Amino acid sequence: MKVQGFIRFFALLRMIINNNIMIKTDILIIGAGPTGLFAVFEAGLLKLKCHILDALPQPGGQLSELYPKKPIYDIPGFPEVLAGDLVDGLMEQIKQFEPGFTLGERAETVEKQEDGTFIVTSNKGTKFHAPVIAIAGGLGSFEPRKPLIEDIEFYEDKGVKYFIKNPEKFRDKRVVIAGGGDSALDWSIFLANVASEVTLIHRRNEFRGALDSVEKVQELKSAGKIKLITPAEVIGINGAEHVESLDIEENGAHRKIECDYFIPLFGLTPKLGPIGDWGLEIEKNAIKVNNALDYQTNIPGIFAIGDVNTYPGKLKLILCGFHEATLMCQAAYSIINPGKKYVLKYTTVSGVDGFDGTRKEAPKAVVKAIV
Amino acid sequence: MKVQGFIRFFALLRMIINNNIMIKTDILIIGAGPTGLFAVFEAGLLKLKCHILDALPQPGGQLSELYPKKPIYDIPGFPEVLAGDLVDGLMEQIKQFEPGFTLGERAETVEKQEDGTFIVTSNKGTKFHAPVIAIAGGLGSFEPRKPLIEDIEFYEDKGVKYFIKNPEKFRDKRVVIAGGGDSALDWSIFLANVASEVTLIHRRNEFRGALDSVEKVQELKSAGKIKLITPAEVIGINGAEHVESLDIEENGAHRKIECDYFIPLFGLTPKLGPIGDWGLEIEKNAIKVNNALDYQTNIPGIFAIGDVNTYPGKLKLILCGFHEATLMCQAAYSIINPGKKYVLKYTTVSGVDGFDGTRKEAPKAVVKAIV
Repeated sequence: MKVQGFIRFFALLRMIINNNIMIKTDILIIGAGPTGLFAVFEAGLLKLKCHILDALPQPGGQLSELYPKKPIYDIPGFPEVLAGDLVDGLMEQIKQFEPGFTLGERAETVEKQEDGTFIVTSNKGTKFHAPVIAIAGGLGSFEPRKPLIEDIEFYEDKGVKYFIKNPEKFRDKRVVIAGGGDSALDWSIFLANVASEVTLIHRRNEFRGALDSVEKVQELKSAGKIKLITPAEVIGINGAEHVESLDIEENGAHRKIECDYFIPLFGLTPKLGPIGDWGLEIEKNAIKVNNALDYQTNIPGIFAIGDVNTYPGKLKLILCGFHEATLMCQAAYSIINPGKKYVLKYTTVSGVDGFDGTRKEAPKAVVKAIV
Repeated sequence: MKVQGFIRFFALLRMIINNNIMIKTDILIIGAGPTGLFAVFEAGLLKLKCHILDALPQPGGQLSELYPKKPIYDIPGFPEVLAGDLVDGLMEQIKQFEPGFTLGERAETVEKQEDGTFIVTSNKGTKFHAPVIAIAGGLGSFEPRKPLIEDIEFYEDKGVKYFIKNPEKFRDKRVVIAGGGDSALDWSIFLANVASEVTLIHRRNEFRGALDSVEKVQELKSAGKIKLITPAEVIGINGAEHVESLDIEENGAHRKIECDYFIPLFGLTPKLGPIGDWGLEIEKNAIKVNNALDYQTNIPGIFAIGDVNTYPGKLKLILCGFHEATLMCQAAYSIINPGKKYVLKYTTVSGVDGFDGTRKEAPKAVVKAIV
């Protein structure tokens, strides 16, 4: 088909272009969770530029992807903060340091250059060149839990989607969503007004999610905007070049339903992924760092901060990641500016100078005679 | 005089009572700055009770005492927060763990008991009994900068005040304030409506402070509510039992002014104070801790967290104090509950159970059939 040919041509072109893109920065931060984001701020205070690479389509890590509406109670100074609001606060806090973002790509390989700097290449061929790498990968990159269906890998990019990046892709298409949690409920609700047909399949009659999501799906089902098949499972995928229909097992009986897209939403599981093969010392599925001096790994110039690292006494808490990011930036400064000594300045006293030319500072005292 | 006799009697009585007060707690926190306050929260998650002792009259440390209205830019998640608001947020965050407070008293001595617990005694004789001590003393306890005036120590508690705890004490009295900064300006403004007479003395004509404070003093001076003597200095204090008058040098000439109270406000300087004699290893005026494992000092059971400690790579930042407080609490748990293993729970998942019976938790998912 002509259209598919065009798509393939552009995908190829994009890879060629990506292969020529070399993003240069001071610190390449792998992971856009709260620790990675805050590292941008502390680096900025030291006049270091950061670029962030993350496999998810938006910043915030699991806070955005898994629980944006959940309250967190242990962020110092916030008696209660929604995970999504914390991410918003961090994005606002770092914006004057103009971090670069490459989202939806996964760090794949690293090569150490003769001059001690690194080149990291993503799974889409984008290259990043930096003297310092900070791995802030959380529990790893989130990989979708895939249903055990024969040939499902063949249909990935041919109608099987585990993430929804651009809902417009599904406009006027027939979509089957599988799953029984919040993601399955929320995307069914959203796509009910986009797709020509939404079918929600779950292996139980009961859904587990926010009360208002369950009620909304009930409403849309009653209105005929969502088809519901429960208890049921997708057991096969059919189609020559693209998903055309699914085999369903419902109450022991088999049937086939036609559709254009199959979206299994069975949750995400974190995997350390290709970073696990970089030669970093790994312990309990986390990257070992040099106790707590500066959170450097066994490869000088590569640091690991936040939930992805381990050291004696390690706690996987967001507030610990903030501290680790801060100490890491001091060490990064020494690597990038050898021999130079940085004297810590307090933002309360010295203010904050953004890379975008903005300046934040406390109102100055006046010196004035009273007559 | 009868009244003075009574006051002396009650002061004596108070010391006798204090000597019999023994406050028991799990962790005695010395210092009510942000690090000490947040330690209460992390201890509370582990079901440990805390009592806080601080020399200043209110919680918050230097954030409340020195710069409550100044913005801080490097608290993670807050693009900008006033120091006083951060303290309010922390107080709100810890309130369900019902910390005890002893304010306006300074930790003086420590005695290790045979069972490994500690008894700390304050300068007012209050005693605290705890198995764990966390020193979160910031840069030290804030001591007022005292003017070099002969016999000024004699008049302390007899009309010379370096702090204002209860402004009502000055109602309808004649007050002389000395100093040229925000404290001197702000207290002159406040007492102008309390005292019968406020005189502000400064060795320069120019004052250094917030513009609106300088303007307000100008206004009150013009309205005759504040007397201003500049450039001038207080060089002597007179009175048999209490301040009765001050000797002033103004432009080389000497004069005397009558008053009831003299309040020199020349700023505070932090001093490690009596804690420096507890046998703790001190380095660069800070308490050495065991790298970053759990921030324990050379005396097992005594921890130092926040600006008061030092270790390789130490940064004196509030966010680092939060991390140190958190790791310290884990070690305190092991000391208080030997042999018991604590499994970290996330507040997002498990909620927060207050000692006051309150419970905070994320809205629960429902499990519900759609029919």
